[in-house]
Amino acid sequence: MEKAAQVGIIMGSDSDLPIMQEAAKFLQDLDIPFELTIVSAHRTPQRLMEYASKAKERGLQVIIAGAGGAAHLPGMVASITPLPVIGVPIKSSNSIDGWDSVLSILQMPNGIPVATVALNGAKNAGILAASILGSSNADILQKVASYKAKLEQQVLDKVQQVKEKGWPNSFD
Amino acid sequence: MEKAAQVGIIMGSDSDLPIMQEAAKFLQDLDIPFELTIVSAHRTPQRLMEYASKAKERGLQVIIAGAGGAAHLPGMVASITPLPVIGVPIKSSNSIDGWDSVLSILQMPNGIPVATVALNGAKNAGILAASILGSSNADILQKVASYKAKLEQQVLDKVQQVKEKGWPNSFD
Amino acid sequence: MEKAAQVGIIMGSDSDLPIMQEAAKFLQDLDIPFELTIVSAHRTPQRLMEYASKAKERGLQVIIAGAGGAAHLPGMVASITPLPVIGVPIKSSNSIDGWDSVLSILQMPNGIPVATVALNGAKNAGILAASILGSSNADILQKVASYKAKLEQQVLDKVQQVKEKGWPNSFD
Amino acid sequence: MEKAAQVGIIMGSDSDLPIMQEAAKFLQDLDIPFELTIVSAHRTPQRLMEYASKAKERGLQVIIAGAGGAAHLPGMVASITPLPVIGVPIKSSNSIDGWDSVLSILQMPNGIPVATVALNGAKNAGILAASILGSSNADILQKVASYKAKLEQQVLDKVQQVKEKGWPNSFD
Amino acid sequence: MEKAAQVGIIMGSDSDLPIMQEAAKFLQDLDIPFELTIVSAHRTPQRLMEYASKAKERGLQVIIAGAGGAAHLPGMVASITPLPVIGVPIKSSNSIDGWDSVLSILQMPNGIPVATVALNGAKNAGILAASILGSSNADILQKVASYKAKLEQQVLDKVQQVKEKGWPNSFD
Amino acid sequence: MEKAAQVGIIMGSDSDLPIMQEAAKFLQDLDIPFELTIVSAHRTPQRLMEYASKAKERGLQVIIAGAGGAAHLPGMVASITPLPVIGVPIKSSNSIDGWDSVLSILQMPNGIPVATVALNGAKNAGILAASILGSSNADILQKVASYKAKLEQQVLDKVQQVKEKGWPNSFD
Amino acid sequence: MEKAAQVGIIMGSDSDLPIMQEAAKFLQDLDIPFELTIVSAHRTPQRLMEYASKAKERGLQVIIAGAGGAAHLPGMVASITPLPVIGVPIKSSNSIDGWDSVLSILQMPNGIPVATVALNGAKNAGILAASILGSSNADILQKVASYKAKLEQQVLDKVQQVKEKGWPNSFD
Amino acid sequence: MEKAAQVGIIMGSDSDLPIMQEAAKFLQDLDIPFELTIVSAHRTPQRLMEYASKAKERGLQVIIAGAGGAAHLPGMVASITPLPVIGVPIKSSNSIDGWDSVLSILQMPNGIPVATVALNGAKNAGILAASILGSSNADILQKVASYKAKLEQQVLDKVQQVKEKGWPNSFD
Repeated sequence: MEKAAQVGIIMGSDSDLPIMQEAAKFLQDLDIPFELTIVSAHRTPQRLMEYASKAKERGLQVIIAGAGGAAHLPGMVASITPLPVIGVPIKSSNSIDGWDSVLSILQMPNGIPVATVALNGAKNAGILAASILGSSNADILQKVASYKAKLEQQVLDKVQQVKEKGWPNSFD
Repeated sequence: MEKAAQVGIIMGSDSDLPIMQEAAKFLQDLDIPFELTIVSAHRTPQRLMEYASKAKERGLQVIIAGAGGAAHLPGMVASITPLPVIGVPIKSSNSIDGWDSVLSILQMPNGIPVATVALNGAKNAGILAASILGSSNADILQKVASYKAKLEQQVLDKVQQVKEKGWPNSFD
Repeated sequence: MEKAAQVGIIMGSDSDLPIMQEAAKFLQDLDIPFELTIVSAHRTPQRLMEYASKAKERGLQVIIAGAGGAAHLPGMVASITPLPVIGVPIKSSNSIDGWDSVLSILQMPNGIPVATVALNGAKNAGILAASILGSSNADILQKVASYKAKLEQQVLDKVQQVKEKGWPNSFD
Repeated sequence: MEKAAQVGIIMGSDSDLPIMQEAAKFLQDLDIPFELTIVSAHRTPQRLMEYASKAKERGLQVIIAGAGGAAHLPGMVASITPLPVIGVPIKSSNSIDGWDSVLSILQMPNGIPVATVALNGAKNAGILAASILGSSNADILQKVASYKAKLEQQVLDKVQQVKEKGWPNSFD
Repeated sequence: MEKAAQVGIIMGSDSDLPIMQEAAKFLQDLDIPFELTIVSAHRTPQRLMEYASKAKERGLQVIIAGAGGAAHLPGMVASITPLPVIGVPIKSSNSIDGWDSVLSILQMPNGIPVATVALNGAKNAGILAASILGSSNADILQKVASYKAKLEQQVLDKVQQVKEKGWPNSFD
Repeated sequence: MEKAAQVGIIMGSDSDLPIMQEAAKFLQDLDIPFELTIVSAHRTPQRLMEYASKAKERGLQVIIAGAGGAAHLPGMVASITPLPVIGVPIKSSNSIDGWDSVLSILQMPNGIPVATVALNGAKNAGILAASILGSSNADILQKVASYKAKLEQQVLDKVQQVKEKGWPNSFD
Repeated sequence: MEKAAQVGIIMGSDSDLPIMQEAAKFLQDLDIPFELTIVSAHRTPQRLMEYASKAKERGLQVIIAGAGGAAHLPGMVASITPLPVIGVPIKSSNSIDGWDSVLSILQMPNGIPVATVALNGAKNAGILAASILGSSNADILQKVASYKAKLEQQVLDKVQQVKEKGWPNSFD
Repeated sequence: MEKAAQVGIIMGSDSDLPIMQEAAKFLQDLDIPFELTIVSAHRTPQRLMEYASKAKERGLQVIIAGAGGAAHLPGMVASITPLPVIGVPIKSSNSIDGWDSVLSILQMPNGIPVATVALNGAKNAGILAASILGSSNADILQKVASYKAKLEQQVLDKVQQVKEKGWPNSFD
């Protein structure tokens, strides 16, 4: 699977893995090949430069980058590669309620966008990566559509459950 | 150009046009066909449903949606289409410093991501749309790479200017 | 009770039920018929459109809508129905301290108000719904007045308790 | 018109009038009788008590209260009357970006709801008051529905204008 | 002690007692007579009016008022009595991190000050009340000065302890 | 007047004078002797120590201290003198919307309270100082009561004006 | 070690020790002599003055000062000594999410800088102190460089571990 | 002067020059050799790597880095060089009130500190750089001490001016 990876999932620290693996799981469910590794903007800047500058030639099509606190990884990767970069703000232990990672990732200057998702929103990063690939791949796009349809069905099932639990509900 | 539009740029109000046209200009510069129109989540919910549900079959590959205040347009479009949706938070007149539109667009629940860019970051939305198309189109990706190279050159030119204005600068 | 429901209580997810049932309980106590169900703006947008557009003809007079994060449910319902919509911001797990749901519900643009209550304030949403019905129904208004009088009495009882526990208190 | 006023619009200071008159104008447009006056929670607490306690017997059905800074007027009125109270946070001169008035009005304790609208959202307060009256008055509800339909038409007209100004737009 | 109470300590709910009793304990330690009771701005507005309007004639010289959320008690008391009112913002359960009570108490309009202390700072409210009485009473002022001297000594004792625990410390 | 000053008004910089003179004007109107000078915690720490430590023996009864940004003046004065210290947060030029001065003054640790008033609330600081003096001086307290009565009358006059300007108003 | 201390680590309270000792540990690891003690700006202002004014003559070259809430210690020390002062904001118990200490330390006025590190970032304060000493001491600078190289190696080791745990990883 | 530069001042864009030149001016006043140039983390990442990795060997002892929005320049430089890095958050045009640059610079992870100064605090960055050099250079430290003494004198002069303008002032 490694050679053919279409999506690269990177994170600043292995402590981010419990959050970031949600992106991996979603891609796995959709049979989209990906790779996952650690790249720290601050502790391995050289590795960051290499990872980002070789991403395109290695065949990656989308990069998902998660980081907490003063989160520079997504933006720095985006400064080097022309590929779309999805940023996942992570609420780490000494974060100021997550505001630091959200703003460090979101508020990129003109020229270098990062596609930011919600705080700890790694699953959504996986879905967005699939949508991006699906943008020019009808099969993948269909999978995303099916996933959203499944979500809809789950809610409709819950509607039924709530009704059966005795809450009055006149609207099916 | 309309028929072949790859990117749809929508906004909640024509008052958002001065901000949102930056996305259009960037796509124009890169010869990426796009369309631009107004779709209000709150004042034209029916139009929103139709726009989002027909986007894929009409050939759009990416949607850029800008809105201010309690900004529901990007998230609602993303709830309907499997295409990637880029959200542009806009600092409108009675906004609470832009926090409302940023959080209304960014903090989407699991399942329905919006690729959020910086406050008023419509130009970055255009660049991100190009990156997304470029993700599976080498020509467009090359254009994005060239654009980023041009940015780099502009900074290097400024370096020279600052030096000539008499600020000591020992590093070229 | 379903047929005669005057108040519709909806929420984005069944995980919101522990919060939102406080609205239901209050209405139950006041013998105001209501219905309760799940409508997700992002996962069941079609259901949202139908629920909101049929609410009036189905006889509902007030809608209470609760949601967390980028909470679009109350505002989208308000964009479709002319009925008064009460929004309950919910502090969900990945919320940024509740600010996201508060601002997504409160900061609606001109034309489409949502009557927003406090974070997790579902009980107050129930009371407000009763006040709204009471606005043109003397019996219900009397019940709301009685409820507020009961609150007053509860405080006065606590005054007595605190006094008896030995805190000096010269003011009855 | 005074005797028959259905809606009472009050504000903490005459400096709030430029904002608050938007509520009055909307009600005027819909031929809903209202009264407008100044009641200051902090400078005329006695007047506040009297206004709120007599509101119901005077025939008012809804109260709209606007205030800035540590805005206690809406909540204090709601503590006295069983009528629905709509709160309008106002961004006054020494406000901390409006956060003070928003939170002082929104975050009411259990038992005493205030139907809060957006910062400076007096027009929406007027619309919400109409919805509340319309909740049990088909004529007024129809007027609110017509108003929302007019908003929709205005957007559709803008769609046409934007198209004519030369922005490509393939979606009518 | 009741008759001679110089300080009135009031709070919006008995759930505030664990916080607010710190004020009482400090005054007790300094032998300053006080009373403590519950006065809710929103649930007992009539009691609030009576308490505040009779405070001066009953011999109180300072009022300490604590409340959480949309905390109107301190400001409303200050609107009625000319006595100095100390406000204690309390971080209650559904508070938005305490910001609501802080801003509701602090941001009073011109004319009606509330002497606000830190979030949950009831002890400091007690100390401030003593300072205010001490402002024209040399005995009480001396007690406050002694208390501050005791705090200083406690730190100096800690300095010694830290040193003995083996942390190098060259400065006594 | 200097010798008999009961209130000391100090500020960190002469740029704070336009704000802080509101406190002086109020005291002047009430014939309460005061002094006004500049004491900078950061640029004149020695002067700060002297001012604060001599305040009591010089006859001051209350100190009003205003400062912006990382505002340490009020808290440091309070750490030295047993007198009540009123802190005025000032929104200076590079302030982060005033939050820095508000929190630097308000959030004092246990033991060292500062009586904080609203952002730029120097007038309220003057009124609070008068209340504090009035706490044990019936004449001054009466003046404060009269001032508040005058505020009430001003609102009642505005009520009349608004009525005469043609706004319907059924409540006198 | 005391006599030769190059770095002084001070904190407002012994409750800050669990956080602040991280600075001490780092300096210990690098064999940089330091001292550690308690100096409270608010409870021992005299000690603060003495500590800060004698720091230079006692041979200290850098001061690290940690404090929570309205944290005045770092700024006040910086107002007295010409030495570089590193401020560590601490999230103490009644802090408003740490914002108070961050802003009280960071937002110093022109003339009196404090080198502020992240919330609870005492370890970084130790590293920064070493960098400052290293700025003119090649040995110490080399130690800092070695420490950063070690961090890099730790990440590279984690890269290997993640790979071995079975996550696909095509980039070494 | 270039060859001997002890301090490097860099900024992300020439639009930051009006703010950042305050650092240069201060160093100029103290005859501390410096260089000033533009290095953009996002537009010239290669230049950033080179600048930071050669800074030490080129003889720089301190680096001052200013940037706005998602400000990654200071942190990225600090990740590469062992020299002390001072970060200046800049409130740029689309910044969210400066919070983004403050948090992106301040909240660095353990291991990679940035010495952060106040928003737009470039002058303080210059002073802090001088203190750092002065930490092991008695001449420079004396200059910093003299500068602070000059600030003190300026305040004392203002004290005199305020007195002469007629404000009562009993404390010299």
